[in-house]
Amino acid sequence: MTKVLVTGFDPFDNEPVNAAWEVVRELDGVQTNAAEIVVRQIPTVFGDSISRLYQAMDDVQPDVIVCVGQAGGRSAVSVERIGVNMSDARIPDNNGVSLVEAPIDTDGADGYFSSLPVRSIVEAIRGAGIPAEESWSAGTYVCNHLLYGLMRRLKQSPWAERGVTGGFIHIPFLPEQAARNKNAPSLSAELVRKAVLIAVDTACLK
Amino acid sequence: MTKVLVTGFDPFDNEPVNAAWEVVRELDGVQTNAAEIVVRQIPTVFGDSISRLYQAMDDVQPDVIVCVGQAGGRSAVSVERIGVNMSDARIPDNNGVSLVEAPIDTDGADGYFSSLPVRSIVEAIRGAGIPAEESWSAGTYVCNHLLYGLMRRLKQSPWAERGVTGGFIHIPFLPEQAARNKNAPSLSAELVRKAVLIAVDTACLK
Amino acid sequence: MTKVLVTGFDPFDNEPVNAAWEVVRELDGVQTNAAEIVVRQIPTVFGDSISRLYQAMDDVQPDVIVCVGQAGGRSAVSVERIGVNMSDARIPDNNGVSLVEAPIDTDGADGYFSSLPVRSIVEAIRGAGIPAEESWSAGTYVCNHLLYGLMRRLKQSPWAERGVTGGFIHIPFLPEQAARNKNAPSLSAELVRKAVLIAVDTACLK
Amino acid sequence: MTKVLVTGFDPFDNEPVNAAWEVVRELDGVQTNAAEIVVRQIPTVFGDSISRLYQAMDDVQPDVIVCVGQAGGRSAVSVERIGVNMSDARIPDNNGVSLVEAPIDTDGADGYFSSLPVRSIVEAIRGAGIPAEESWSAGTYVCNHLLYGLMRRLKQSPWAERGVTGGFIHIPFLPEQAARNKNAPSLSAELVRKAVLIAVDTACLK
Repeated sequence: MTKVLVTGFDPFDNEPVNAAWEVVRELDGVQTNAAEIVVRQIPTVFGDSISRLYQAMDDVQPDVIVCVGQAGGRSAVSVERIGVNMSDARIPDNNGVSLVEAPIDTDGADGYFSSLPVRSIVEAIRGAGIPAEESWSAGTYVCNHLLYGLMRRLKQSPWAERGVTGGFIHIPFLPEQAARNKNAPSLSAELVRKAVLIAVDTACLK
Repeated sequence: MTKVLVTGFDPFDNEPVNAAWEVVRELDGVQTNAAEIVVRQIPTVFGDSISRLYQAMDDVQPDVIVCVGQAGGRSAVSVERIGVNMSDARIPDNNGVSLVEAPIDTDGADGYFSSLPVRSIVEAIRGAGIPAEESWSAGTYVCNHLLYGLMRRLKQSPWAERGVTGGFIHIPFLPEQAARNKNAPSLSAELVRKAVLIAVDTACLK
Repeated sequence: MTKVLVTGFDPFDNEPVNAAWEVVRELDGVQTNAAEIVVRQIPTVFGDSISRLYQAMDDVQPDVIVCVGQAGGRSAVSVERIGVNMSDARIPDNNGVSLVEAPIDTDGADGYFSSLPVRSIVEAIRGAGIPAEESWSAGTYVCNHLLYGLMRRLKQSPWAERGVTGGFIHIPFLPEQAARNKNAPSLSAELVRKAVLIAVDTACLK
Repeated sequence: MTKVLVTGFDPFDNEPVNAAWEVVRELDGVQTNAAEIVVRQIPTVFGDSISRLYQAMDDVQPDVIVCVGQAGGRSAVSVERIGVNMSDARIPDNNGVSLVEAPIDTDGADGYFSSLPVRSIVEAIRGAGIPAEESWSAGTYVCNHLLYGLMRRLKQSPWAERGVTGGFIHIPFLPEQAARNKNAPSLSAELVRKAVLIAVDTACLK
């Protein structure tokens, strides 16, 4: 059985909930046909988000890592293609830190591709009747920060040798958030949870 | 108990389903705190849509009429404010008829306001955590056609004397439609059905 | 020679300029093939905007009236189809007045159509290589207020008998406004001025 | 005097013109305070676009390279941040070639940052009253292809040693294109040309 680490963030930007956490919190311990899921929460904080992810990876020793974050304004489940080596924030993180054009790793590559089967995941989710798309930008806030940190580590020992794969999925607001946020597009937690499970199984079966 | 006529359209524009019909079909016979609901399907056809609505009104003798239609591309439940005296269609109706700048009623007013409590309905739906908005244009296809025909009749005897009210609600694609339509925004049938029930009760209690 | 009254508003909502005024101010006294243009400024104020328009109409005795207003966020010249009998404002007018669901004329019709040849104007503007569209909502701020007031008067004596026509055109931000407003779409004053002249001539030749 | 190579593409996707070429063609031989500009056209073709750019670089021996491409649908001048190692096309290139998830360089990095002073350029353009923004995705068509090829070469000898910098700027449709394309946002050639000159001078003065 493939072991999959799924992460979600805590709320930020004065929102009472984070759609990503609402979606993934109920997946801890779930067994699918292909996978056994372990869920961990990640703080919406530059720096700490990456170290908490690394700690969870060390503890869980997963074969696949799927990080999930909220992207208010999008209307579909967005499977990210690349993390970039820059943090640049419109709003401070949950520790009050604002970063401006700050590299994440001064020795790192400019960008790292996700190693999830992005296109297959998008097609599988859409095949289940749930709106999904590829995305070529995870932004420059903590979501991209975590994706970059994840992919950088997966290129290194011992993760590279073990063939561990991972990536990031952005999700729309929940309807109750959208009702408070100028009627932005939304998807229900149930549908997005189903989409995350499809992503997990697609990643495991590749 | 207030009697409420709720209508939905059949599918059009090569879509296998019409979100409005999927939402309202299950409401036939439902009793809420304030209302008893009767549901009728309306054809997506200029002319016939109005005559079928009038026939349903004559049969059911409702106190309130809520017509529901699909507006692909919108992200929130949209309570319409006004029907206008023009049909002008990008796509033919289900009888193959295309109309260009055609008045609906050559003796009619330019526009008729909905007599539903639009703002109260929007606030009540949003209060239930479902994205909702007012809309000042129902377009110029069959949805507006029906709204205009409805409001014109409600200004006349005997409907005006009896104080019968009515209006129109546009709803987004269902997620499964959005997954086939370039990831347009969507709302689930369950949430929209709840929104329609809130609209019905708000209209009855005013 | 047909006499045409063209109006534009003064700046509002803390903008240093109003795109509409920047566009039309230079048209005063211009003679086209079909028209002689008189320009007047209208205050962005409920009530006063209509009385100032009526005063200008009485002074100028125009055959055609084209009111122009700014609609930040739109990307094309938008020829409005209808004015509605409601004022409901997100922001106060330039006298500090906010209106909520307020009828403009308690005895008035719900809506009045523009009597400009809307479709011909849109086609003529696009034919000149300038983005243009029809619009079915002029909003519920002072622009709609003025359009409703204009069309109400043109239905009455002596304007109706004389066959005076009129309507409203919404225009995008100017580029310099868009550069300050989150990169909203824009059109240059030169292009929009050309579009207004095309609208004027199209209205005169019908 | 700094020598700057500016490139634009030929028309594609059945458009009679390419906004980028219309903008840059008139800049050949222009001298600004800081720069002497040489303009070359690049074919909208995978592979050839890069070889033609390299040939132009060899001929011109520029200090700065600014490639310009059309991005229909955007409303502001978009200074790109990164080119990614993938070509994946909705439409075939001008040689009829379609690529699906194809790496540009099988030995290349996943992405390369632009070495233009992106933020300074955006601020300078906006300061001149022209809408501008940073962009984190140049897409996966020929524009990104060229940007990736450019940045890969600038990391290598002798370009890296000489400190040659470069990058890519996406521009909106021209108004006449937008008038034919569903009223997409647009900017006039004059304004965009001014923006490109500002970008050139900002890049030279850094």
